[in-house]
Amino acid sequence: MTSTSSTLVLDPDSARQGYDRAETVRVAVLGVGMMGQDHARRLATLTAGAELVAVSDVDVARTDAVAKEFGVRAIHDPKAAITDPEVDALVIATPGFTHEELVLLALDAGKPVLCEKPLTTSAQTSRRIVEKEAELGRRLVQVGFMRRFDAGYQQLRALIASGEYGAPLFLHCAHRNATTPPNFNSEQLMLDSVVHEVDATRFLTGEEIVAIRVIAPRSSTQAPEGLRDPQFVIMETESGVLVDVEIFVNTTFGYEVRTELVAEKGQARIGQHEGIVTQSAAGWGGSIAKDFKERFGAAYDIEFQRWIDAVRDGSNVDGPGVWDGYAAAAVCEAGVRSLHTGERVEIDLGPRP
Amino acid sequence: MTSTSSTLVLDPDSARQGYDRAETVRVAVLGVGMMGQDHARRLATLTAGAELVAVSDVDVARTDAVAKEFGVRAIHDPKAAITDPEVDALVIATPGFTHEELVLLALDAGKPVLCEKPLTTSAQTSRRIVEKEAELGRRLVQVGFMRRFDAGYQQLRALIASGEYGAPLFLHCAHRNATTPPNFNSEQLMLDSVVHEVDATRFLTGEEIVAIRVIAPRSSTQAPEGLRDPQFVIMETESGVLVDVEIFVNTTFGYEVRTELVAEKGQARIGQHEGIVTQSAAGWGGSIAKDFKERFGAAYDIEFQRWIDAVRDGSNVDGPGVWDGYAAAAVCEAGVRSLHTGERVEIDLGPRP
Amino acid sequence: MTSTSSTLVLDPDSARQGYDRAETVRVAVLGVGMMGQDHARRLATLTAGAELVAVSDVDVARTDAVAKEFGVRAIHDPKAAITDPEVDALVIATPGFTHEELVLLALDAGKPVLCEKPLTTSAQTSRRIVEKEAELGRRLVQVGFMRRFDAGYQQLRALIASGEYGAPLFLHCAHRNATTPPNFNSEQLMLDSVVHEVDATRFLTGEEIVAIRVIAPRSSTQAPEGLRDPQFVIMETESGVLVDVEIFVNTTFGYEVRTELVAEKGQARIGQHEGIVTQSAAGWGGSIAKDFKERFGAAYDIEFQRWIDAVRDGSNVDGPGVWDGYAAAAVCEAGVRSLHTGERVEIDLGPRP
Amino acid sequence: MTSTSSTLVLDPDSARQGYDRAETVRVAVLGVGMMGQDHARRLATLTAGAELVAVSDVDVARTDAVAKEFGVRAIHDPKAAITDPEVDALVIATPGFTHEELVLLALDAGKPVLCEKPLTTSAQTSRRIVEKEAELGRRLVQVGFMRRFDAGYQQLRALIASGEYGAPLFLHCAHRNATTPPNFNSEQLMLDSVVHEVDATRFLTGEEIVAIRVIAPRSSTQAPEGLRDPQFVIMETESGVLVDVEIFVNTTFGYEVRTELVAEKGQARIGQHEGIVTQSAAGWGGSIAKDFKERFGAAYDIEFQRWIDAVRDGSNVDGPGVWDGYAAAAVCEAGVRSLHTGERVEIDLGPRP
Repeated sequence: MTSTSSTLVLDPDSARQGYDRAETVRVAVLGVGMMGQDHARRLATLTAGAELVAVSDVDVARTDAVAKEFGVRAIHDPKAAITDPEVDALVIATPGFTHEELVLLALDAGKPVLCEKPLTTSAQTSRRIVEKEAELGRRLVQVGFMRRFDAGYQQLRALIASGEYGAPLFLHCAHRNATTPPNFNSEQLMLDSVVHEVDATRFLTGEEIVAIRVIAPRSSTQAPEGLRDPQFVIMETESGVLVDVEIFVNTTFGYEVRTELVAEKGQARIGQHEGIVTQSAAGWGGSIAKDFKERFGAAYDIEFQRWIDAVRDGSNVDGPGVWDGYAAAAVCEAGVRSLHTGERVEIDLGPRP
Repeated sequence: MTSTSSTLVLDPDSARQGYDRAETVRVAVLGVGMMGQDHARRLATLTAGAELVAVSDVDVARTDAVAKEFGVRAIHDPKAAITDPEVDALVIATPGFTHEELVLLALDAGKPVLCEKPLTTSAQTSRRIVEKEAELGRRLVQVGFMRRFDAGYQQLRALIASGEYGAPLFLHCAHRNATTPPNFNSEQLMLDSVVHEVDATRFLTGEEIVAIRVIAPRSSTQAPEGLRDPQFVIMETESGVLVDVEIFVNTTFGYEVRTELVAEKGQARIGQHEGIVTQSAAGWGGSIAKDFKERFGAAYDIEFQRWIDAVRDGSNVDGPGVWDGYAAAAVCEAGVRSLHTGERVEIDLGPRP
Repeated sequence: MTSTSSTLVLDPDSARQGYDRAETVRVAVLGVGMMGQDHARRLATLTAGAELVAVSDVDVARTDAVAKEFGVRAIHDPKAAITDPEVDALVIATPGFTHEELVLLALDAGKPVLCEKPLTTSAQTSRRIVEKEAELGRRLVQVGFMRRFDAGYQQLRALIASGEYGAPLFLHCAHRNATTPPNFNSEQLMLDSVVHEVDATRFLTGEEIVAIRVIAPRSSTQAPEGLRDPQFVIMETESGVLVDVEIFVNTTFGYEVRTELVAEKGQARIGQHEGIVTQSAAGWGGSIAKDFKERFGAAYDIEFQRWIDAVRDGSNVDGPGVWDGYAAAAVCEAGVRSLHTGERVEIDLGPRP
Repeated sequence: MTSTSSTLVLDPDSARQGYDRAETVRVAVLGVGMMGQDHARRLATLTAGAELVAVSDVDVARTDAVAKEFGVRAIHDPKAAITDPEVDALVIATPGFTHEELVLLALDAGKPVLCEKPLTTSAQTSRRIVEKEAELGRRLVQVGFMRRFDAGYQQLRALIASGEYGAPLFLHCAHRNATTPPNFNSEQLMLDSVVHEVDATRFLTGEEIVAIRVIAPRSSTQAPEGLRDPQFVIMETESGVLVDVEIFVNTTFGYEVRTELVAEKGQARIGQHEGIVTQSAAGWGGSIAKDFKERFGAAYDIEFQRWIDAVRDGSNVDGPGVWDGYAAAAVCEAGVRSLHTGERVEIDLGPRP
């Protein structure tokens, strides 16, 4: 099996060896919807070595309001932000369909980018970015697969890599949201949610996914009319690991992401509920995360810190890159096809540049 | 959806209302291999109202040894045991291929039978027994699906039946054994192990299973050469509940049966590890059941007590019956076909007499 | 340190070696309040080898009603039940102040007794029974410390006895009830509840308790006026193990008994919540036992089965005996003294006959 | 009961409202042993808005080595570091006996200080600092009680404050270390370890501790000769909450800090094991934290970020302050007295300036 990712598993102790760093990295955030605002706040208050200097959004009023809140520049044209000489690096949190153009411009400008998933909205356009970055000969783009920075995923990957439990056989995954935004459609379960399981599978196993099948059981009456929710996704990796994913985005009450590894000589689970455990007339137990921010907040924090560290060191970005974004897009495209046909669909990524 | 089972969920408090019972029930155990001996011991020492009076096995030496151990009669011909006037009821724990003949004889003799699964080795022969019992007009046969008497399954069934969590959408199941006996073949994962998940699904949902598909991922190098282990089984019920089963019978270290319900407004899990939790240089945690006796010992005890109670009361047997045995056989046959073809196979049980 | 108990840890596999047993044991239950009725039902329906033949209670109407329910004789004078030639063995579930007289009569009659705790209401009277039984030269009395038959306590005792974790240093215990009956007083927390921790400590460590101190923190406003609830009890064993007990009998919502061992090289906990685990709008978790019947029902079942097995075998009773009942009474008396004085009180059991 | 602390429970969402902040805070770390180096690394790489500019230690060689590693100035005289005009704020991680002098100098210099616990080595000297800061009329000193920034403690404090479970009755605490450094003495269990439980109790309940008693059970043979380990500490708060602490610093294998609240209508536990859960031939379970850095690493990170945020905002330091340090010193002094006498010792803090 081929190596699928240039992502290193990051040892927090060894990772920051050089302290003789460049100055603070000046960052502009493109797109300041919910996600972009969260990232702006992260950069402004929590990421060491980063300085939020500008925000940019097609919504002019929103741009101005957010800029004012953080005391930074409002740049109304995202393209201008990319080429601005006082911007060192970019976070892209605009809608997915804009990513291709913005990332290509950032590559032209030679500036590091942290691009929220998806890298682009199709395998074909993502492939174009893979080739463009390969021509440049250096890594500039990191894709926002934040789970790679979650402690549980890191532990599980290390366990698999250790070989202690023999070869992996199954990954059983569940991805549950409380509710979906209006107009969420059946394809988005794959493109917005399962995309994370796709990347997690590649991260955990170090293998590409070669086939996918989507089965839609009865839909929940709690889901909006017409939405195929839940769905059940079955993926196969190069070596034959079977990955099943329950994707259910209208659980009505909580957010949950769990993965169970079944290997030849052992099993392991991540994503269990943690925190305070109570007993009262309501029984014993605890609370369930409300949303992805609660579940993966720490992973985002680490993702940003590591990205800024890498940018500051002048080294290449070392998180998930354009190939990872391309592979995820290709698998999800196949998944959407399977949702419509009910058939198993094979994935061929072609050669890696 | 049709009701699939005459099994009542048993309320331990209300179940034994009549104390004005007949005398002790005299039981013969047919087949005294590992399972039959275990049942003989149970009847001899633990089941109130039962008296073990005879054992019978084609292995004459074994029959004599076990009879001597328990101080009961050795009857070398199982058919003679069935018609023996001093035997009131029968436990059948002989190999599956003998069940059809023995159960039919017991029906002829009008004696209550607790028959270990499978009821018979084919849907066709099980169907014959269904019809024969229907002609008699009273229930005499209980099939040994002991999980129905496990506290966890009872709780989960009650939760589903309450409707509190809305309609069920998924059952995620895992069935793991430490190792398999010699000459265990790929079909037996379905016939000997998944058969329990088939019955459990029917018990929990109150629905028939209408389709099955078996996917065989890479086999574990820890499994015997040639055995397709693990397998992944996907079943669909009448209303569209999707049931996935990881069946893995060479985990190398332990026995585990777990089920997770995903319903519209809640989830629930049974089969978690229980018992003492330790902390030491080895980490924190506990031990894993070695085998089905450890995991389901209490369920067998209750199964036997309830069966003897019913026999003693002169009431009909009220545990899982011949229709349950037939339905399980039909689904497992379809599963074996799917294992060989890779295709989804539909199941048609025909009319229930 | 001296050995404190003749109780064997019972290996369920080896325990019932002899099947050539006497006939069924005919049992009378003395006292048919809530506890006695529960035991009557157990003997009538669940305990193999037992036959409930009579019930007896000073409340004539209740005696008649319960006798009718179970189809057995009503004997209005408990003393007559003890000497009745058709009664082989006795369960005593009358109020504690009657135990001394009834147990002594049973010893006179040479009949096996399972006496609910307390053995008697004072150390002095319990001591008298110890001496009386010693004169008889055989064990006839078992005291109803059912926790010794709970799987968790058995596992914890075995772990301590194995020496794997070195010497025990602490037992941290919690004993919680939902509510107390009317007129429950501050002493009863010790006499009715902590008495179980006293016996459990002796069972687990194999040591006598040499000192006790009771600290009463602020009382809960949920407890009845005037009741010192909760209390905090600190006991010391011969070798210096420190045992702390939170006793809290008006938690308002549930019943819970937990013990944590802290030993030199490891720790272990028993009494965690078990059973189905759910997720819903209420959070994740499970239900809490309502009362001791739910928590220790299986332990009572095993206690009774083992007692009947021993009686039937003609062997001596092998559960907790009169010395255990006496030691518990002596420690609890000291505890009541400490509750009143706030001082540490030492216990001297005197020589064991 | 009086309010004991000026510490706010920090709402992570509301806390950083002002983004119009001063420049980066230039910090010197005094004392660069294990703890000081850890803090230097934290400031250099992880704390947004902080700039590590100097380190200082009486060990000249160590100072130079650490200064070189981080590319900052080595200042061989800690007092010079305090008054250095290019140092805005100070972290004190020198041995405890130096704290009084250094903190007083920092107060003279009017510079914010984050001082590792203990504030000073006696209640009397801590009291002096309380008075000195009170004279200044503004808060400059934060004491390094990092647990206040741990998510679990924050959740438990919020639960108590909500009143949902009624008044608190007990806190059951356990504090376990794998091993102790050479020459660790019996008093240090109180001064170095239980001091955290003292502050945690005050933080959680919002009450002062009014009495303490230490009971030393048998010592572990795994502890160094002469060390009283473990110990059992019982504290009482103003309103009568009983706090028991198992302090055991030679468990041989791991680090663990747990707290259980028992309140009138509910209980709650924090400090359970979290992270990946595995199953293998070794059983099911997970790993135990090796040391306080693993257990409280995130709490230290938050503590530092919040401290720098407050310093940068020009607002007063808002973490645990000198009164908290003084109260902890007074309770621990009483605890040492109780260890020696076995008696309950009362604590009188005197008036708060």
